[in-house]
Amino acid sequence: MHNSTITLESIMNAFDPRRLSSHIEAFARIGANEFGGVTRLAFSQEDRKGREKFLHLLETELHAEIHTDPLGNIFARRKGKHPDWPAIMTGSHLDSVRNGGKFDGPAGVLSAFEAFRVLDLLRIETEHPLVLAMLTSEEPNTFGISTLGSRGLAGKLQKTQLEALRDDGGKDFRTALASIGGDLERIQEAVLKPGSVKYFLELHIEQMPFLDRERKNIGVVKGVTGICRERISVMGVASHCGTTPMTERRDALCAASEVILALERAARGEEGKAVATIGHLNVFPNSINITPERVDLDAEIRSYYPESVHRILHALGEEVSRIQETRGIHLDRKPLYRTEPTTFSPDVRGAIREAADRLGFSTLELISMAGHDAAHMNAVTEAGMIFIPCKAGLSHCPQEWTDTEDLVRGAQCLLQTLLLLDKKDDEENR
Amino acid sequence: MHNSTITLESIMNAFDPRRLSSHIEAFARIGANEFGGVTRLAFSQEDRKGREKFLHLLETELHAEIHTDPLGNIFARRKGKHPDWPAIMTGSHLDSVRNGGKFDGPAGVLSAFEAFRVLDLLRIETEHPLVLAMLTSEEPNTFGISTLGSRGLAGKLQKTQLEALRDDGGKDFRTALASIGGDLERIQEAVLKPGSVKYFLELHIEQMPFLDRERKNIGVVKGVTGICRERISVMGVASHCGTTPMTERRDALCAASEVILALERAARGEEGKAVATIGHLNVFPNSINITPERVDLDAEIRSYYPESVHRILHALGEEVSRIQETRGIHLDRKPLYRTEPTTFSPDVRGAIREAADRLGFSTLELISMAGHDAAHMNAVTEAGMIFIPCKAGLSHCPQEWTDTEDLVRGAQCLLQTLLLLDKKDDEENR
Repeated sequence: MHNSTITLESIMNAFDPRRLSSHIEAFARIGANEFGGVTRLAFSQEDRKGREKFLHLLETELHAEIHTDPLGNIFARRKGKHPDWPAIMTGSHLDSVRNGGKFDGPAGVLSAFEAFRVLDLLRIETEHPLVLAMLTSEEPNTFGISTLGSRGLAGKLQKTQLEALRDDGGKDFRTALASIGGDLERIQEAVLKPGSVKYFLELHIEQMPFLDRERKNIGVVKGVTGICRERISVMGVASHCGTTPMTERRDALCAASEVILALERAARGEEGKAVATIGHLNVFPNSINITPERVDLDAEIRSYYPESVHRILHALGEEVSRIQETRGIHLDRKPLYRTEPTTFSPDVRGAIREAADRLGFSTLELISMAGHDAAHMNAVTEAGMIFIPCKAGLSHCPQEWTDTEDLVRGAQCLLQTLLLLDKKDDEENR
Repeated sequence: MHNSTITLESIMNAFDPRRLSSHIEAFARIGANEFGGVTRLAFSQEDRKGREKFLHLLETELHAEIHTDPLGNIFARRKGKHPDWPAIMTGSHLDSVRNGGKFDGPAGVLSAFEAFRVLDLLRIETEHPLVLAMLTSEEPNTFGISTLGSRGLAGKLQKTQLEALRDDGGKDFRTALASIGGDLERIQEAVLKPGSVKYFLELHIEQMPFLDRERKNIGVVKGVTGICRERISVMGVASHCGTTPMTERRDALCAASEVILALERAARGEEGKAVATIGHLNVFPNSINITPERVDLDAEIRSYYPESVHRILHALGEEVSRIQETRGIHLDRKPLYRTEPTTFSPDVRGAIREAADRLGFSTLELISMAGHDAAHMNAVTEAGMIFIPCKAGLSHCPQEWTDTEDLVRGAQCLLQTLLLLDKKDDEENR
């Protein structure tokens, strides 16, 4: 059957809402906990069970070549008319955080699966190969690495770094990777060959409240936030909390409190363009009758806008100087981590917008404030993301929720975008 | 030899500075660590070693009856002219905190020992029995109890509560007490019989900077601070630290920071009459990429003045209400512990002051901001304390230091006070 004879309406009608939501629920049962949440950490027994179920689905329900790479990434490939042309890839992840929700990850994998099923059903043959991808460990695993699969595809992983890793339980990374069908010795084989994948498209729940609040259907993701993390060590003096007068104290926790509030103030001042958080803080000696000698805190700033990060860091620096002067306490700042913001492919963003327009779905341009596989894929492909609404923006918790209608609209928009990209690149190649 | 023939000068000259400081140094070697500090926790091997050494000193150098009670308190009793009269007791402790100093405790025991040695040397016989006391575990032990020996003497300990205790290493209290020669079954026998001890006098390093700064010799302690502790639980909402806009957050750590600074502000406002500290704080889940859901912090207020405590608690309450309103975060307050302030015996304070005057030592009236055995002894005797200077008020650390001249002046004042009390009560009894 030739594509041109298939109407947009027939494609939309081929999506099955009950089927899509039942797949979501089926995966949510793997690692379900008593609180209504899901714990399916990468490399866990639940992760392996999810992979088995996913492979079974691919094998029994799609017409595609199935392949697991040395990082445990699972691919289902539809050859298309030109099997040697660069592929168009779409997918997301199936692992979860501890006590997370049902949609973060599975929404992207299972809506892509539904899109592939529709292509099979309508016997649509694309120009380019089309690849459905389930990527390994998008969430932080017990070895402290997130977006593992996409980093590997983008050539950002080193065997020597990975083989040194042990998790809290003493398990080594090599064994963990082998347990999901990977092979640390061959991870370089997972790196995408130049020109092998042209586009990467990921659907994901928004994890922010904007689509829900503004009642929009589709988020066109402009880019992904940069992340800047630093460790601030506040070096006070331990002293007896009874006998040391207030005026003689060098209380590291009081100084740290000023840092925490100054960072919050600075981020609030950026009016929606940045967030800043101190989520991790330890007090030494942490004893009820000793004034805190030292507080270590990890500050994180996220923004797509470098000038916002700059202003926040500047405000933090001013506060640190002021505290050192007024409290006589030394503060040590050490950069921990920095990623620059990512801007997604204008072609993919344009295709998403056009697809939504054709389908009559409202859109909102958004910045992703969370990291995603698509951000790493953007280094080696033209990448983009579709966000779909989730209630009140809640995510990484049992309350995470996306209505089935929104899931279906997302899947429809995903397929339409893939077809537009297939056509677009086809035209350019011709 | 009759007391009246002995001049004040001859008593003063009998004190041996080198002997006193060499005793301080000898005990400091038991539990000495690489940082110059001392760790001689109650019930530890070092504690037992210190006790053996102390018993050896008593046996070989004093003319006194030696006795260890069922709490491990060690006493050396000089009968005096009237062995059945109420005794006058003096002493302190030999245990230390972890990585503490050389003087906190030993200064009081060893200056009293030196005073007893002088009495022996000059063959002074007092009217009343005189008792030198080394009290068990004044510092917090591994079972979480401080001032154990004096609580026991004051009848404040219950066998049933103690026998349930296990320390972190799984050791039970009964075994620990037996290891220092005590006996949990017989602790009621340690309680002072009414009328058996009239006065209790303790010399201690000040642990505050006032004597050192104002260059005074002797602190006459008016009383001991009250202590008020509460647990404040700040209940926020955990959320993704990237995707949750600043305006939507319920960050428990930011709210806790406001509490910390408000408490500091309120205590500073009391101008030297109170201190307040948050020394212990835990963040949940304490993860770099999750906004803090909950912070538990332990607030402590110390003051001799109930109205200061009241004002600080009031200010804390106002701040808690404000935070609940502005941040939409619930704060839960739970009282943990409260002791009322102690006022020492006017007779003892008067005697200390008179002794210092006679000896030509300058004095300063002080409130002790730390708990002491004397505060518990005050419940069952007429108690009082002599403070001696320590450098910059530093204590519970290797830098803790008192000059030998100050130690000797303290010991001289201690003996003179004991003799005045002996005479005073003698007159009243007659």
